[in-house]
Amino acid sequence: MPHTMSKAIPLQSGNPAQQARRDIRGGRHRGHTGGMAPGYVQGNLCILPADYAMEFAAFCQRNPKPCPLIGVGAPGDPGLATLGGDLDIRTDVPQYHVYRHGELTGEPYDIGDIWRDDLVSFVLGCSFSFEEALLEAGIPLSHMAGGENVAMYKTNIDTVPAGRFSGKMIVSMRHMTPADAIRAIQITSRFPQVHGAPVHIGLPEAIGIEDLEVPYAGARPQIKDNEIPVFWACGVTPQIAVAEAKPPLCITHKPGAMLITDLLNRDLAEP
Amino acid sequence: MPHTMSKAIPLQSGNPAQQARRDIRGGRHRGHTGGMAPGYVQGNLCILPADYAMEFAAFCQRNPKPCPLIGVGAPGDPGLATLGGDLDIRTDVPQYHVYRHGELTGEPYDIGDIWRDDLVSFVLGCSFSFEEALLEAGIPLSHMAGGENVAMYKTNIDTVPAGRFSGKMIVSMRHMTPADAIRAIQITSRFPQVHGAPVHIGLPEAIGIEDLEVPYAGARPQIKDNEIPVFWACGVTPQIAVAEAKPPLCITHKPGAMLITDLLNRDLAEP
Repeated sequence: MPHTMSKAIPLQSGNPAQQARRDIRGGRHRGHTGGMAPGYVQGNLCILPADYAMEFAAFCQRNPKPCPLIGVGAPGDPGLATLGGDLDIRTDVPQYHVYRHGELTGEPYDIGDIWRDDLVSFVLGCSFSFEEALLEAGIPLSHMAGGENVAMYKTNIDTVPAGRFSGKMIVSMRHMTPADAIRAIQITSRFPQVHGAPVHIGLPEAIGIEDLEVPYAGARPQIKDNEIPVFWACGVTPQIAVAEAKPPLCITHKPGAMLITDLLNRDLAEP
Repeated sequence: MPHTMSKAIPLQSGNPAQQARRDIRGGRHRGHTGGMAPGYVQGNLCILPADYAMEFAAFCQRNPKPCPLIGVGAPGDPGLATLGGDLDIRTDVPQYHVYRHGELTGEPYDIGDIWRDDLVSFVLGCSFSFEEALLEAGIPLSHMAGGENVAMYKTNIDTVPAGRFSGKMIVSMRHMTPADAIRAIQITSRFPQVHGAPVHIGLPEAIGIEDLEVPYAGARPQIKDNEIPVFWACGVTPQIAVAEAKPPLCITHKPGAMLITDLLNRDLAEP
């Protein structure tokens, strides 16, 4: 074994989530957040004017499987102390989508210039957390192995409306063997804050999905003969509900470029 | 409201399970035990000579889903204190099956005359307990509504052998909507001592079942278009393993005429 010189490692303070947010805030990371700060919860972001905020909070409360709220800010407050003491929602997401009256009008890297005193931040749990638990349990997820987005479908399942928010439920689909499907139901049941147990299994047509080969979004799946489809409520559901409500302003993360929080995936597990 | 005479209620001592065992022991009940002592765990019985007992204990340990042991006696001891202080395994089952070298040779109402000092009693959890939990959760079980035995199938799944015991796994099948199937997996996962989570869902052919309409035992099921089959490991598995091992003596309960224990179904729930 060769003799090696010891090398000074730069000092870093804070946990990996804080470090990731600092990199994002400083413009050193601008893309997808998949694989960053492993073990930490990543969330979907939705920022709405106060006039819409209470209705959206009610929509989430009434539809916890597609809209699992893990953090809510105070009107005008860019901080979200329960998700990270230093968190600043104006800068800590790699890239944003800005919608005005339902139309995508910008994709900025920070939103400091359009922040307002009446904006309320909502952060929702996402499937990254339960996918980590499935992989740790040895359940293969082919879309991840292929580096693709999970297949998503629009169902005929109505969400419970709240004020101006309503619409059909979007589901993500992962295909697996029956034994893995049973295990996946057990595992994801423990994670109600990140969509929880599946909403459906087998029988796509029973929830209005005509053809699994034609997803609403994500990659076309290749389902083997010994696999069955398992459907989870998807965080795209509230995005569509918001898009259809056409609020004057709505700011979200750009898909895949999530908010990294200080919460640990393992701390979401119940019981 | 009419005035009614108060009526003396006969005094009964002990819990409903003890009362049921007393009725059985006294010859006042000789049939099926379904519906007796609701809430109390009923068990499958298998009595073997000591020479076979340790191998059977190992078989159960290695195959906990089809063979969930809830009680084991000491050689020659007809008591099973962990399942009931007053329990006498020679008299407390409504009707027995006696097998000699694998052949059914008798169906007595008690086995006091053939009890021996080397016999070991094994009691295994049964699906009655989890079916109670499913019904309480509002999941319809059509075989129960129709008063029929659940459909059972022989699979191509090998049990883990132990000494002279081996064989294929038998499964019971209940058909239900996908939403109920997900809930049923969650509920039965909490009951590992009574077969626990399903072993399979959908795709009967993947476990060697060619035709769901031709069960190995039980009633032919009528599966609706919006239902999927869910398969649980079945207590018939060890019965077949024992029958094929052909021990010189084996005593079981007559199917449906179970041992009623002092355990409460609700106490088996984890967590």
